[in-house]
Amino acid sequence: MKKSLLALAVLGAFAGAASAQSSVTVYGIVDLGFASTDTGAAGNSRTNGINSGGQSASRIGFKGTEDLGNGLKALFQLEATIAADTGSSFTAATGNSGGFNRFATVGLQSATFGTVLLGRQTSVVKDAYDQIDPFGDGGTVGAISNIFFNGTLSGDLGRISNSVKYTSNSYSGFKANAAYGFGEVAGSTSANSNYGLGLGYANGPLNVQYAYNNQDSTNAALANISKTKAHFLGLTYDFGVVKLHGAFADTKVDFPVGNDGKYRNYLLGVSAPVGPGTIFASYAVNDNKTTGSVDQDTKKFAISYSYDLSKRTNLYTGYSKTSNDANVKLGTSAANGSDPSIFNVGIRHKF
Amino acid sequence: MKKSLLALAVLGAFAGAASAQSSVTVYGIVDLGFASTDTGAAGNSRTNGINSGGQSASRIGFKGTEDLGNGLKALFQLEATIAADTGSSFTAATGNSGGFNRFATVGLQSATFGTVLLGRQTSVVKDAYDQIDPFGDGGTVGAISNIFFNGTLSGDLGRISNSVKYTSNSYSGFKANAAYGFGEVAGSTSANSNYGLGLGYANGPLNVQYAYNNQDSTNAALANISKTKAHFLGLTYDFGVVKLHGAFADTKVDFPVGNDGKYRNYLLGVSAPVGPGTIFASYAVNDNKTTGSVDQDTKKFAISYSYDLSKRTNLYTGYSKTSNDANVKLGTSAANGSDPSIFNVGIRHKF
Amino acid sequence: MKKSLLALAVLGAFAGAASAQSSVTVYGIVDLGFASTDTGAAGNSRTNGINSGGQSASRIGFKGTEDLGNGLKALFQLEATIAADTGSSFTAATGNSGGFNRFATVGLQSATFGTVLLGRQTSVVKDAYDQIDPFGDGGTVGAISNIFFNGTLSGDLGRISNSVKYTSNSYSGFKANAAYGFGEVAGSTSANSNYGLGLGYANGPLNVQYAYNNQDSTNAALANISKTKAHFLGLTYDFGVVKLHGAFADTKVDFPVGNDGKYRNYLLGVSAPVGPGTIFASYAVNDNKTTGSVDQDTKKFAISYSYDLSKRTNLYTGYSKTSNDANVKLGTSAANGSDPSIFNVGIRHKF
Repeated sequence: MKKSLLALAVLGAFAGAASAQSSVTVYGIVDLGFASTDTGAAGNSRTNGINSGGQSASRIGFKGTEDLGNGLKALFQLEATIAADTGSSFTAATGNSGGFNRFATVGLQSATFGTVLLGRQTSVVKDAYDQIDPFGDGGTVGAISNIFFNGTLSGDLGRISNSVKYTSNSYSGFKANAAYGFGEVAGSTSANSNYGLGLGYANGPLNVQYAYNNQDSTNAALANISKTKAHFLGLTYDFGVVKLHGAFADTKVDFPVGNDGKYRNYLLGVSAPVGPGTIFASYAVNDNKTTGSVDQDTKKFAISYSYDLSKRTNLYTGYSKTSNDANVKLGTSAANGSDPSIFNVGIRHKF
Repeated sequence: MKKSLLALAVLGAFAGAASAQSSVTVYGIVDLGFASTDTGAAGNSRTNGINSGGQSASRIGFKGTEDLGNGLKALFQLEATIAADTGSSFTAATGNSGGFNRFATVGLQSATFGTVLLGRQTSVVKDAYDQIDPFGDGGTVGAISNIFFNGTLSGDLGRISNSVKYTSNSYSGFKANAAYGFGEVAGSTSANSNYGLGLGYANGPLNVQYAYNNQDSTNAALANISKTKAHFLGLTYDFGVVKLHGAFADTKVDFPVGNDGKYRNYLLGVSAPVGPGTIFASYAVNDNKTTGSVDQDTKKFAISYSYDLSKRTNLYTGYSKTSNDANVKLGTSAANGSDPSIFNVGIRHKF
Repeated sequence: MKKSLLALAVLGAFAGAASAQSSVTVYGIVDLGFASTDTGAAGNSRTNGINSGGQSASRIGFKGTEDLGNGLKALFQLEATIAADTGSSFTAATGNSGGFNRFATVGLQSATFGTVLLGRQTSVVKDAYDQIDPFGDGGTVGAISNIFFNGTLSGDLGRISNSVKYTSNSYSGFKANAAYGFGEVAGSTSANSNYGLGLGYANGPLNVQYAYNNQDSTNAALANISKTKAHFLGLTYDFGVVKLHGAFADTKVDFPVGNDGKYRNYLLGVSAPVGPGTIFASYAVNDNKTTGSVDQDTKKFAISYSYDLSKRTNLYTGYSKTSNDANVKLGTSAANGSDPSIFNVGIRHKF
């Protein structure tokens, strides 16, 4: 239980505090474990070590809510990834903007009209696939964004700076969202900008999510801006004994000259209570359909088992293998055609 | 209300805790909004985007007080600027030392003798103009330090590392402070050092602040150290329906050889409750009086409207325009003689 | 008292909360003071300033414990050094990995089997000498690691990334620990790896600590890995009026080719209540016994006085002088044979 909730519970029980009281909540995850990573290259390609974020990115955050009355609330959130294996944090590493790279937002939530947030936040496409991926797009083993969309949204790339996002309230399970990320290139409203639209239905055992995202490239010559257009459609159905996950994505990179890039993605997954824990597995494909592309497809299989010690702490183990065709490298692959794999076992603690 | 205060309130009400109990307070501001910024350069000079700190720099801090008895307290404060639009934080950007760039202090406060703080903190000149500027030297629209002192104290430059500062208690409204920043250059007590003296009177509707600051330049050849000497005098008078703000500054840069730099500054400002919010406006001048300087003056007009949703959350909008003479560029100007402007609308939430 | 403890105390007293409740504790130290540092070089070698960490490194941390039942607990800790004199923090400076450079750990603690922690943490050798050094290996004046082990473990170098550490519970005062730090070099389990073993006995006035550490160098050519093998043995005995400290260390650097490095260290120290405070002093030697080494020994004397204003806040002053033989420079020495010294006076506040 968070400190602020504790304090509020005490106040609520004993002091009859006004409902508008709010506070900062300090929260986060420390996830560390042994990992054996193989890039699949010829020769000495395996690295053993203690890695951060095997199941979920280690992180620290600060967030809060203020009740403004009349069904209106102010919200803020600041959240940073932590490289807990070395401590290194708040610095810009690969696929990480540095600082509060995960969330840096403030906005308003209305019980009538929904929520508007400004700042750095998840794209609507990431909002969709996070709900569909058995691994919740988390960790180093199974995250869907690792090969979906040809890898262009992996890790921190599913987050947008300088953005405004609207999320509707839920109406009988239906919910929509829309986001716009400013490109902030002088004299151009297009370069580096980003927009997305999402629609979802979550009710009982069924969850269906659709999202579309357009990312314009940054380019000094505005006529040379390429546009990466990504559609995502996914669903999960919870049968109780097992939950099925299915996803499809279509990505097109419109280049001003030359062949456009075309990629299709498929994912089938399951999650199920097994013994004292839960098993997660997925099989995903990145099908490169660009005109002229030869042997550039990638397939990935991932499986993980999670065992809860409490609601906040669990042990986990996982394995994944990525198979690259002869002329492509995705995942942690070091060279075209190599097949990277990872095995891990660790502990994740939420605070 | 802060967590610590909550907890203390509970303790106070139910546990009869000793008055010396203290704690860490986590606090901050997230301020984000739409901004349209024009450098005033020829061609494509306008950038639209979501910017951090339109009204006040986004920040996160940790502070606390310990009652040592006999009217003595120990104090500490750690405060960092947040670039909430991209999340990037704790890194050294322009005019930002990185880390806890705003405050990193520890010291003692005596009910009899006043307060001594060590570390990184605001200069006494910044302490003065923060009180006089209608914009409190905050935000991207109207901050006084943007053109005052020829722009040499803008943003983070009004803060001093490696410093000791004494602030007296208030005597019938009179209050004095003095600061010294060590230069920390081996073998020289002068190079890079900084000292300042301030005196203020705040009583009823009147607030008068005077401060003087001397900054020695860092220079390998000690004989070449230049000294930037800045005087600031300002006052505000609150008539109730309107508060008037006036400021004057005189800056001299003593160069060991060649012409000394000379700058005069003037500011007139108002702040007033208008409708459901408050309006702030200022007109400021940087008059370059250096011998031989031609067409190097700058004028700036800024106006802002702030509407409170609560004590902690408000909406704001603002506009400012800086007019540079033909041979000077201050503010966000890209080229001599250009006239930068900014319009913004945003939300500021304090936690 | 920490916020979380406050909240828990309130809960415990009034709400009869379950024992498993836990929380985040925000804690730290801000230690700032005047320091006059002389590198001992010819000419202008003295620097005066306000320095951070004169007695203990300034730091901020987040930690917590979750009771999992059956004598099992989950633990995490994130702790970062703060350069409180300039605010600069979370960045990688000399002897500092950046981010949460002091601790970034998660693990399990069993009332039966002891504690296992993963991540970045202190080496077992540092765990030992921290207990024996009168200065607790803290601050800029007397830290033992400044010259022990030929300076190879000074500051942040006594901490290990990518590591797993086991610490036993205490049995009649006996306690053991063991750590392994993965080298994380592809294809090599040796390069850059680190392991250590420690054994201690602490009972009544006596504390004896032994630890051994082996650090393999990182080297592209695996046959060229050198091994730094360090033994440490220390004890303290508290006579009440005075506590005696003694330490011995033996370090051997096995080079694949050429002469191995050999270093012996000795420390004698006292700590004693004197007047209203406590005095700490030590005399330490780094004896370079490498074959062929001439005039490469270093001796260091350090003394400090600490005066408590409360349990959390104290004033301190200290002085140390390092004497380098003609062909060696350790400590803050700038050139072979120079004798660096430091004097400081400051305030340390724990929150």
